[in-house]
Amino acid sequence: MALTVVQHVLKRLADVGVVDVFGVPGDFAFPVNDAVCADPRLRWIGCANELNAAYAAEGYARVKGLGALCTTYGVGELSALAGVAGAYAERLPLFHLVGMPRMAAQRARAIVHHTLGDGEYDLFRRMSEPISCAQAVMTPQNAAFETERLIAAARHHRRPVYMAFPADLAALPVVADAAPVEAPRSDPQALARAVASIEAALGRVGCACVLPGLLVARLGLNAALQAFIDASGLPFATMFHDKTVLDERQDGYVGMYDGALMNEEVRAFVESRELILTVGTLMTDFNTGAFTARLDPSRVIALDHHEVAVAGRTIHSVEMRDLLPALATALGRRDWDRIPPAPRPAPEGSGDDPITAGALYPRWERFFRENDVVVAETGTASMGLGFARMPRGANFYNQALWGAIGWATPAALGMAVAAPARRVILITGEGSHQVSVQELGQFARLGLRPIIFVLNNDGYLIERLLCKDPEIAYNDVARWRYAELPRAFGCDGWFCARVETCGALDAALAEAAKGERAAYVEVVTGRYEASLLSLTLSDRLKTLAAE
Amino acid sequence: MALTVVQHVLKRLADVGVVDVFGVPGDFAFPVNDAVCADPRLRWIGCANELNAAYAAEGYARVKGLGALCTTYGVGELSALAGVAGAYAERLPLFHLVGMPRMAAQRARAIVHHTLGDGEYDLFRRMSEPISCAQAVMTPQNAAFETERLIAAARHHRRPVYMAFPADLAALPVVADAAPVEAPRSDPQALARAVASIEAALGRVGCACVLPGLLVARLGLNAALQAFIDASGLPFATMFHDKTVLDERQDGYVGMYDGALMNEEVRAFVESRELILTVGTLMTDFNTGAFTARLDPSRVIALDHHEVAVAGRTIHSVEMRDLLPALATALGRRDWDRIPPAPRPAPEGSGDDPITAGALYPRWERFFRENDVVVAETGTASMGLGFARMPRGANFYNQALWGAIGWATPAALGMAVAAPARRVILITGEGSHQVSVQELGQFARLGLRPIIFVLNNDGYLIERLLCKDPEIAYNDVARWRYAELPRAFGCDGWFCARVETCGALDAALAEAAKGERAAYVEVVTGRYEASLLSLTLSDRLKTLAAE
Repeated sequence: MALTVVQHVLKRLADVGVVDVFGVPGDFAFPVNDAVCADPRLRWIGCANELNAAYAAEGYARVKGLGALCTTYGVGELSALAGVAGAYAERLPLFHLVGMPRMAAQRARAIVHHTLGDGEYDLFRRMSEPISCAQAVMTPQNAAFETERLIAAARHHRRPVYMAFPADLAALPVVADAAPVEAPRSDPQALARAVASIEAALGRVGCACVLPGLLVARLGLNAALQAFIDASGLPFATMFHDKTVLDERQDGYVGMYDGALMNEEVRAFVESRELILTVGTLMTDFNTGAFTARLDPSRVIALDHHEVAVAGRTIHSVEMRDLLPALATALGRRDWDRIPPAPRPAPEGSGDDPITAGALYPRWERFFRENDVVVAETGTASMGLGFARMPRGANFYNQALWGAIGWATPAALGMAVAAPARRVILITGEGSHQVSVQELGQFARLGLRPIIFVLNNDGYLIERLLCKDPEIAYNDVARWRYAELPRAFGCDGWFCARVETCGALDAALAEAAKGERAAYVEVVTGRYEASLLSLTLSDRLKTLAAE
Repeated sequence: MALTVVQHVLKRLADVGVVDVFGVPGDFAFPVNDAVCADPRLRWIGCANELNAAYAAEGYARVKGLGALCTTYGVGELSALAGVAGAYAERLPLFHLVGMPRMAAQRARAIVHHTLGDGEYDLFRRMSEPISCAQAVMTPQNAAFETERLIAAARHHRRPVYMAFPADLAALPVVADAAPVEAPRSDPQALARAVASIEAALGRVGCACVLPGLLVARLGLNAALQAFIDASGLPFATMFHDKTVLDERQDGYVGMYDGALMNEEVRAFVESRELILTVGTLMTDFNTGAFTARLDPSRVIALDHHEVAVAGRTIHSVEMRDLLPALATALGRRDWDRIPPAPRPAPEGSGDDPITAGALYPRWERFFRENDVVVAETGTASMGLGFARMPRGANFYNQALWGAIGWATPAALGMAVAAPARRVILITGEGSHQVSVQELGQFARLGLRPIIFVLNNDGYLIERLLCKDPEIAYNDVARWRYAELPRAFGCDGWFCARVETCGALDAALAEAAKGERAAYVEVVTGRYEASLLSLTLSDRLKTLAAE
């Protein structure tokens, strides 16, 4: 029997690895909601609201490569747009499945709920255009082809796609066939030319390094990049954005490169190399130390998803997934010059000492274990944690380009769903946590055991550091009893604590480390206890303002 | 000294009555955030997230006529879109003030945070186009004129407008002048013709009634409409959407008209009138009993904001604000035929009896007092409360067209800010409450004392009633301890209770009625205890499916 439109789409999504669908149900989306629940390969992950569902699906996609989100028309889909836009910015393919009113109602321009009341039915799809790489309204006649086109687009661009399902068409049988669109290939001659160029360029220089970027992780090419590093012996520096593209506990690691803002030795090392290979690196403000990175374009080789640029000359139709192994094969190992990473600072304080930044960040760094999934919220917390040296196999996730506060709590949920066997550690500021806090309830509902640290410094600290008057009213947030939230949200049996001293923090870390139950620790610090990078940014702004 | 761009805009907004700005701060919005805090006429109302801020501003606009929302670029503004779209659908003017990156960064196509990383800076404004009636990027040279244009557009259309402020331009002095755009006028001849037509039409018939709609409230014309009712003696029926446009405790009130779904006597009365005057009425699915209202177009006179249609012939350039007083003056009072409203059902149950729908809705109806502000969330709760007969001066607010779950909790915050001297009563289902629950913390922070009822029926009840399989997994929500939430959110001193019996409900209602402190009551009912309208809709769908 032919599959229905929505069954067909879900089958193809499951084929490519999407087995969990995050969302909020709604009447226009019932056919999609029903089909997800009816498909034994799929799981419906209900969230408290659509923005949270989008962030959860985005977090899931960081771990699994692809994600899916299902919302209802208008009210639902628009609530998710900021999360979908984040996935677009952060290069994460999400399938945004949207339930629409019946095509019959659309044709009649009926004034139904969840519309603007004007009989227009193409407005919300248009609103999703700038934040998706392809869109389609699915019908029995186009479903086969459009599904393949949208899957291919999502993979090609590593961006979200938008699929709308009119309620009366979603359950009709598909009446066409379509073959999968083949993955983009490399031009063999271009690939050979790229390998030769890079080999020659490396042969001409006495020192070089690699700057791996997040696109490597987005393409699932971490192992291929590691093989290239192993074969070539090239050293590498890590950048801020999802920094654990390569293991930071290997010999080739020189440290975190953040332009001129942090780690002067790493800056001097990187910028003085005769050749710098960037691999899927985004040169954004946060990734470049507020544009203080100074890479001489004539000394940069930039490996991108579908092409490579050698000293500014682009060679097209060269897939990164083909180029990295080809380079690993072609290049001989050399004993490249390198520097050791800076030693890790020891944690300050003990007993009744207050929790300073110097007490906190080194403790967190030591708390991390191999294969942990660490989710660091935008703000002072991620700015501190970004400089932790991560254990082997551990991942560090942040949202350094989109930078939406509130992302981390639901993103951690999505990661925990994607990697139930790994330890998921969420570290968030309390202002950010307030944005999307209700998703705490889902961890318990799904039987997941996250370790959550809420850094409570009584307001939006990063904003206090960056605005004109740190004490201005808009930087205050409502004062919650954070450690009481899990219980109210139905998280039974969690370890919950509020800590204000180093001793209490140590005890809480020890309890959380046992891993017997989920942990939720409110870490109370002074109002201006900030990580070094956030203080540096603050000083820099003041200097600029004074000039 | 000349005002800066943002100071000028805020001054003009304060002039027209916007004195509270809801929002979440952000670095690109600092110039706007700073200016709001610095202006003694304005108050910054920080919310936990932008969607909640938008709903709060929307609720504020229902009470005050206009509202304002401030968000930062990208992450902030997109998070608010569903709320702004709701204001568009529900005809509520909101000024959406958006902080943008510096124009210098925009010109350089810099890859900064909160962007998609593509150097494009006009995408998010475009995403707001379908849900706003006018947009502008404010500069020193256009600020004077654009401010007047946008204020006029917001008032003319009763829809949101979008104003973006590049951070480097916002604090520069305005370098132009502009006079306010004059309010739309009626054409005196058209107005006279309209009055004569309506007078003649009424003179020809033996029976008639009025169907007032929410646009009357949006235009602040409730008193003018009342004067017209008083002068003409015409009876009226109330419709579902923000139903308290006219007082329901007056002689002319015949009851709630909801097509053929409810109140057969009212339907028969309304649809058998020889003439029906709709006044700012929206004929949406929820307002027409799922399109079961049958009004003969040849017998309808439709008063709209800027025109009137008499039996299908439109007379343009007739402002409702001019037409209502002109009709009140012109028309003589007649003793029109009417029917009395249906008697109010008595509350069922007592003592240890479970809380049935028949126990609950009549109790709530009796709990309401004169001048209350009642906010009813979309779902089974509003479908039950919509048929309560409201006390004098009380307002009943729902979001019957946009119908976003999660609207009511922050909207109630906005209404409480707008009307601090009135009693604000929020009634929400628990699934909806989960969407936006964190705004509870703001009531306490602002010293407001709402009365909140959370109807806990263990899932999305309206969806259970409308979908194929009521017990399907997606209708479940996380099981929270609702009555513990206020404490966790820092709401000290609130009366909190969880009630499962009629006796406990009565005690909680009595305590809440004292008004000494804010009240938060979780009302636990059976899983399928539903209001009559929601059951009727459910039956209707089953009948349709069986046909």
